[in-house]
Amino acid sequence: MNLSKIEPIDRTFFENAQRRWDNLIKPKGSLGRLEEIVCRLAAIQRSDHPDVKTKRVIVFASDHGIVKEGVSAYPQEVTQQMVRGFLRGQAAICILAKSLGIQLQVVDAGIAEEMNEPYLISLRVGSGTKNFLQHPAMTEEEVEKSIFAGIEFARRAKADGVHLIAGGDMGIGNTASASAIYSTLFDLPAEQITGFGAGLDADGRLRKINVIKLALEKWNVPSHRPLEILRHFGGFEIACLTGLYIGAAIEKIGAVVDGFICTAAAAIALRLSPLIRQYLFFGHCSAERGSGLVFEKLDVQPLLQLDMRLGEGTGAALAMRLFDDAIALYDQMPTFEQASVSRNIR
Amino acid sequence: MNLSKIEPIDRTFFENAQRRWDNLIKPKGSLGRLEEIVCRLAAIQRSDHPDVKTKRVIVFASDHGIVKEGVSAYPQEVTQQMVRGFLRGQAAICILAKSLGIQLQVVDAGIAEEMNEPYLISLRVGSGTKNFLQHPAMTEEEVEKSIFAGIEFARRAKADGVHLIAGGDMGIGNTASASAIYSTLFDLPAEQITGFGAGLDADGRLRKINVIKLALEKWNVPSHRPLEILRHFGGFEIACLTGLYIGAAIEKIGAVVDGFICTAAAAIALRLSPLIRQYLFFGHCSAERGSGLVFEKLDVQPLLQLDMRLGEGTGAALAMRLFDDAIALYDQMPTFEQASVSRNIR
Repeated sequence: MNLSKIEPIDRTFFENAQRRWDNLIKPKGSLGRLEEIVCRLAAIQRSDHPDVKTKRVIVFASDHGIVKEGVSAYPQEVTQQMVRGFLRGQAAICILAKSLGIQLQVVDAGIAEEMNEPYLISLRVGSGTKNFLQHPAMTEEEVEKSIFAGIEFARRAKADGVHLIAGGDMGIGNTASASAIYSTLFDLPAEQITGFGAGLDADGRLRKINVIKLALEKWNVPSHRPLEILRHFGGFEIACLTGLYIGAAIEKIGAVVDGFICTAAAAIALRLSPLIRQYLFFGHCSAERGSGLVFEKLDVQPLLQLDMRLGEGTGAALAMRLFDDAIALYDQMPTFEQASVSRNIR
Repeated sequence: MNLSKIEPIDRTFFENAQRRWDNLIKPKGSLGRLEEIVCRLAAIQRSDHPDVKTKRVIVFASDHGIVKEGVSAYPQEVTQQMVRGFLRGQAAICILAKSLGIQLQVVDAGIAEEMNEPYLISLRVGSGTKNFLQHPAMTEEEVEKSIFAGIEFARRAKADGVHLIAGGDMGIGNTASASAIYSTLFDLPAEQITGFGAGLDADGRLRKINVIKLALEKWNVPSHRPLEILRHFGGFEIACLTGLYIGAAIEKIGAVVDGFICTAAAAIALRLSPLIRQYLFFGHCSAERGSGLVFEKLDVQPLLQLDMRLGEGTGAALAMRLFDDAIALYDQMPTFEQASVSRNIR
């Protein structure tokens, strides 16, 4: 993985876009985050007329050995059942993708049992990760393979003419992975960053916290080694997502980050190369405990806060709407001169 | 105005809708605010399958005598110029309405000079309000006429088969009106609730604060008299919006509230009848100073926080998107049984 290939976005296009916004018939800056979205897209795409017509969500699904410790409210087979739901167009992300006109790819990054489904992209880094209380979740080779696969998905999206990508996740047990990653990366006590996941009760959450604490103590991974953190506590889908965000920066394509799981993958990517931040749009703040804290640590503001905690890329898909709206306003509003509207007098 | 006609929403439909959400293939509650949107719509529309297909934004424009005191960054004629922009489809709200498939009505609630424009709905309660530093902004008759007109717009929307309405505002000087309303209604010092409006500089803002303070002292309107607050400091568009929200509750139609100006109108409506709250969805939190405080005082959570401060109903229009998405998910997702997905085990 050659992170030195990542270049900063082009500020000239950012400033040109801001200048256009400032001339449109509205008070300066009054479209807030929508203005920033377009300016940054302009700087990412090196274009005065950035485009978001073609959008793609890539959902990575995989299983987690840590579920053996009783850290999830749902049985492991739900990963596979939900993937079937994705392929049948039934899951929340499918319905959003359809109604928003977003392309959807579903990837088996390493579900426990292989599925025989023609439309499923079969990457299968492994058959689920190892139980991270007993072993590191992944081998170095698995981490590398996952990250390179993620980068390749970004490259393919760009080659297919996609203007904006987002990742999504499906994997029973993956909030435990994400919590362990955040805890190590940001040096936070497990309690502060471990929630109820898909629906644990209070006892279940305590068990989950305890499992994470034991694992953190056991492996004692230093906070400045993001790939080691990923290897010990991550999942195949999380490592693929890290790769996707790295790939977005390499390929100069904007990526919308979904909630609790995807943000953990993004946090790893940002630690590997801070420049990646310029290519990411944080789509929404999950309702999972500690999400607000994570955004503070990352020093970013998510676009949406709708108390969602579903994963699948659903928060990112909703946020993608805003990109369409922002571009429509930027392209179609006239300037003060064109519309004969008087300017600021004070 | 017969506020006793307002009935509470029907909790049975709320609970039915929540029960359906709980059976769909996702963790319970994981769609957050989207679930609440649908449940409340169900209870408002008395339907197990609430609809938001037909949406309408009604923009009320009018002028404000207080601009003579130099409280706005833009000259008064901009109200009229922007209304022309609305009718030509150039303004931000027009572009959003077009791309979201929302009906748009533009109403002259009392612009300083009459405009000869065929598509403009000419209500014209007056030719701009009075300078509220010298006189109460409106007469009792003007307040009444405006509120009744607003109610009538809600009634017409319902009769036209509209499922969801929003109001918008245009009126140079109207943030000064809104700040004075908030200050009186919530007993807040003017400084805390008075911002830069459409683009004042620091001196301009101090002048605006000073004007508001002098007016508040001069009229000394008690905080428990919402109609008197509206009469002294409001505008025709604000009073129409108050009427629109009252009308939404009378007619049992959901209304999405836009930012700083519309929320002031809603705050008056809620003081007149707390039941109205059940029919309102607060669309977004404006970037105008004090907006967060207002939502605290009202004890509501706006759907979007995008640092916008444009008015015209733009924040409400963006929020309306979420209603489409929420309904699509609610209608189209299968239940656990239908999709053969296992349920929570802990």
